[in-house]
Amino acid sequence: MSDYKAPVKDMRFVMDEIVGLAEISSLPGFEEATPDMADAILEEAARFTGEVLAPLNRLGDTEGCKLEANGVVTPAGWKEAYKAFCDGGWNGLGSPAAFGGQGLPETFGIAVKEMAASANLSFSLCSMLTGGAVAALLTCASDELKAVYLEKMITGAWTGTMNLTEPNAGSDLALIRSRAEPQADGSYRVFGQKIFITYGDHDMTDNIVHLVLARLPDAPAGVRGISLFLVPKFLVNADGSLGARNDAHCVSIEHKLGIHASPTCVLAFGDNGGAVGYLLGEANRGLEYMFIMMNEARLGVGLQGIALAERAYQQALAYARERKQGRDAVTGEALVTIDRHPDVRRMLMLMKSRVEACRAVAYYTAGLLDRAHAGADAGQKQRDLFLAEFMIPIVKGGSTEMGIDVTSLGIQVHGGMGFIEETGAAQHWRDARITTIYEGTTCIQANDLILRKLARDQGATAQVVFGEVAATVRALSESERPELQAMGQRLGTALPAWIESTEWLLANAKSGISGVLTAAVPYLHMATSVCGAWMMGKAALAAAARLQEQGQGDVQFYRNKIATAGFYADQILPQVEAWAATVMAGDAAIEGIGTELFD
Amino acid sequence: MSDYKAPVKDMRFVMDEIVGLAEISSLPGFEEATPDMADAILEEAARFTGEVLAPLNRLGDTEGCKLEANGVVTPAGWKEAYKAFCDGGWNGLGSPAAFGGQGLPETFGIAVKEMAASANLSFSLCSMLTGGAVAALLTCASDELKAVYLEKMITGAWTGTMNLTEPNAGSDLALIRSRAEPQADGSYRVFGQKIFITYGDHDMTDNIVHLVLARLPDAPAGVRGISLFLVPKFLVNADGSLGARNDAHCVSIEHKLGIHASPTCVLAFGDNGGAVGYLLGEANRGLEYMFIMMNEARLGVGLQGIALAERAYQQALAYARERKQGRDAVTGEALVTIDRHPDVRRMLMLMKSRVEACRAVAYYTAGLLDRAHAGADAGQKQRDLFLAEFMIPIVKGGSTEMGIDVTSLGIQVHGGMGFIEETGAAQHWRDARITTIYEGTTCIQANDLILRKLARDQGATAQVVFGEVAATVRALSESERPELQAMGQRLGTALPAWIESTEWLLANAKSGISGVLTAAVPYLHMATSVCGAWMMGKAALAAAARLQEQGQGDVQFYRNKIATAGFYADQILPQVEAWAATVMAGDAAIEGIGTELFD
Repeated sequence: MSDYKAPVKDMRFVMDEIVGLAEISSLPGFEEATPDMADAILEEAARFTGEVLAPLNRLGDTEGCKLEANGVVTPAGWKEAYKAFCDGGWNGLGSPAAFGGQGLPETFGIAVKEMAASANLSFSLCSMLTGGAVAALLTCASDELKAVYLEKMITGAWTGTMNLTEPNAGSDLALIRSRAEPQADGSYRVFGQKIFITYGDHDMTDNIVHLVLARLPDAPAGVRGISLFLVPKFLVNADGSLGARNDAHCVSIEHKLGIHASPTCVLAFGDNGGAVGYLLGEANRGLEYMFIMMNEARLGVGLQGIALAERAYQQALAYARERKQGRDAVTGEALVTIDRHPDVRRMLMLMKSRVEACRAVAYYTAGLLDRAHAGADAGQKQRDLFLAEFMIPIVKGGSTEMGIDVTSLGIQVHGGMGFIEETGAAQHWRDARITTIYEGTTCIQANDLILRKLARDQGATAQVVFGEVAATVRALSESERPELQAMGQRLGTALPAWIESTEWLLANAKSGISGVLTAAVPYLHMATSVCGAWMMGKAALAAAARLQEQGQGDVQFYRNKIATAGFYADQILPQVEAWAATVMAGDAAIEGIGTELFD
Repeated sequence: MSDYKAPVKDMRFVMDEIVGLAEISSLPGFEEATPDMADAILEEAARFTGEVLAPLNRLGDTEGCKLEANGVVTPAGWKEAYKAFCDGGWNGLGSPAAFGGQGLPETFGIAVKEMAASANLSFSLCSMLTGGAVAALLTCASDELKAVYLEKMITGAWTGTMNLTEPNAGSDLALIRSRAEPQADGSYRVFGQKIFITYGDHDMTDNIVHLVLARLPDAPAGVRGISLFLVPKFLVNADGSLGARNDAHCVSIEHKLGIHASPTCVLAFGDNGGAVGYLLGEANRGLEYMFIMMNEARLGVGLQGIALAERAYQQALAYARERKQGRDAVTGEALVTIDRHPDVRRMLMLMKSRVEACRAVAYYTAGLLDRAHAGADAGQKQRDLFLAEFMIPIVKGGSTEMGIDVTSLGIQVHGGMGFIEETGAAQHWRDARITTIYEGTTCIQANDLILRKLARDQGATAQVVFGEVAATVRALSESERPELQAMGQRLGTALPAWIESTEWLLANAKSGISGVLTAAVPYLHMATSVCGAWMMGKAALAAAARLQEQGQGDVQFYRNKIATAGFYADQILPQVEAWAATVMAGDAAIEGIGTELFD
């Protein structure tokens, strides 16, 4: 088992230098989000996640959840930790104060969410799903439903779930068959089976609020005939007390590769006459409401990739600093700790630099969401929203793929011990494996990026990003530090490759859709690499500026940040041109061959 | 659970067109290794592995091994399968006929080993380890020991183990502490604890032959003071019957991420007065003997990466051909099988092309070993041996890293179902994770490649490879087929990048060892990519030639081979230039910073 110590220093650096905390806290409604408040929250969250959640992580993995007669039983300690989590106010950090939340910007929320996911991903999923359900209710619930459910969910007294997938409807929600029958009292009876429902049942709270996609009797076929319903586990009486058990039951839980402590449920609705449900918003607009939340949920899953990679990095570093094997290749000193071996150092630096790059991109995106939410200028808010929405598939797809790679490196640093489950390194890798799948696979992120986010404004938002990257290239090139100039040169070579690939995609989007879709994931990887280097470039520039302010701040931290950015540029940026070649190859090699290609 | 059907067609193609089976079977001693014999063996091995070993794979994963009072108990069916395996003669396929083996070339053996590892990696490890021990005995055992042990091990009546690692001596064998005390009768008493001993105990045979690295009392410190001992589980009487239980016991087995059915043992030698052992070869040359076998064992582990990737590919393909989701992006047809979606097709093609490329490199290397073993010309034999030894770290490091990537893609193709253990896709990924670690980590392979294989002849063997690749580039460029010309162009761009990187490494090997060692793994990836493309280029040329021989052979197979080679060139080869940039960056970004880099 390993300790977890939240990387507060890097988080604060990113908030100040990349996100622009000073600006965020000047936005209307975020006046309390001062740097002092940031320090206080990060320190307290670091303590809570490190001391309370992290020690339960391996226990949750080995013990897992059980389905018993009365429902799902979570691992030992889960209930108490959940209560402490809610008592600390962590569940509703970003939710409106009017409903019991703290009303803090996502710029704060993202750091706390990262910590929770690093400390104990399985545990953190419950709150994440509740947050998604809260966002849905805020978007489309009636005032009556809001009054009954929102505060309970924001404080964490009740949790929420998202019920999309069915056995035959995974990525393709058009195939959803669950149905809802209108009742005389304005409510509905919901029938159907949902699978892969995270925390679909558990024993931590006395009620669970299921949000369920289902079809009304007269609904059109396909995705335009799906409505969203609120189906509580227990009905709620007029006085707010709990009433009858609703006809929504967990019938089995999955035996999974990872996140063992997060119960993944099959939920049966309406096996005994119908589950009482309430329509959210308008009929047939369910998918639309889901998509409003989806961007935020995807940012959260991207963050999980970063969180697990950070945890794996901390564990690998701790091991490498302790484990002694072999001689120092340069000095010849015998029996040195393995962090002195060049390839272990390379792996640790790959881990560190990729985590820091993805963290900066994710936090930057959270900042854009805050600006889009609270900004003063409507035009700027719209541009910030588009920019955030452009970045989100990059954060989700790129950071989760990174998370798998980096947690794998974490095992590799441990050598044979990494393969032994007691070590704990393997759990991070197993846990990470779901992140490129749920909330939309990497392919779906890539398609979202090119078919929606790029295409909807014919690359206009992409142009904004290109302009920002180019500005960073200029600043790096104009630096007096040769290491920053070198970064500028690499980024300056990568950017045109990204631009050229983008133009290729836009030009071929209609005529060569098969090639464009073949190029989608390679394009996503490329975008991830450039955006990561862009952020690391900004970070290096900021660090260099701080170093010039004599005697200010943490000299070692700033020097390491510059070295880390340079390492990222050397190891990751060269791949951008390779991805460009692959993108523009499209599906040329297999064009015109049908499914007999695999015979 | 998934079926396994050995890719006999591709194996035979590679044997004929890449390895040159006709030439191999003309070598002295290999006269029986005819194409007809190849067909017969491959068909029978395909049947046995598909029908007997493959169905036990998932069962072995879930049931695992248990340590009971009398030792390790293997999963249900293991004993019977092992007996059938040995009865079929599969255990001694490549071993000398004089000791009960079949004396067939490694060109045959590698295909059978691939099938066994695809069907059931955990099961196949027992025979693989025995093969390593047999190779050691053939190299350095006295005639007396050979007479007692070899035939039993070659027929599989007894199995073998390799005891290198100790708790503080993993990659660094200089730290070995196990010791051997000479006895008056010429035998030794061995004391010490060994960890990570594959099939260190089991219930499939009545004896186990441990090969153990240990130090003699007067041995020099470090790796030059290690000797190799044979320590049987049961002593063997003069008449060949089993005698007393030796003082070598399994004290625990590991709880691992994967290969659950392969018992990974902690073995205690000499807890009760000393384990009787026999010195193999000369004192203090133990490590040297181990290294003789190591090349072969590493080829075998590289093959495991290929085997698991092939199995994962077959399973993903079967799922993709069945699972229906979404519309065809080109025709708009509703509810199509997902193998028609461009990104699923991309993933399947990545899997297929990378497996085929690595298979061709591995089999080519096995052919070189056969030539080095049985060739007529001493000079050519030496050149073939050096070439094989140059390729082996590329096969081991490259194919196992590929195996992790490709089994991960196998999960991804399954979407959410891939994360559910019952699906079986996750097991391949978990099983694959050990392959980049055991028999020398990827870093150790990369260091072997650059510090030993490149440096020992100052790149002369590498020049031979470069020449061969250049010849393939020329042949591709001269083809009348535009798709082959395109491949030639990509390979023709990649080759100079590899050459330049090689020159950089050779030039910096002494002055900048830290940078060179930082570049080692990136260099290995680059070598893997170029060698894979070289082999796929040769395969495409052969396929094109067969297609021109009107009416000959399997037209669809040859067309697919060309498409697969082209896809590999488009997706993988562009990365070579990126790796070159990374190699030649060395450790510039972090040079001069100590371990405070991670503070």
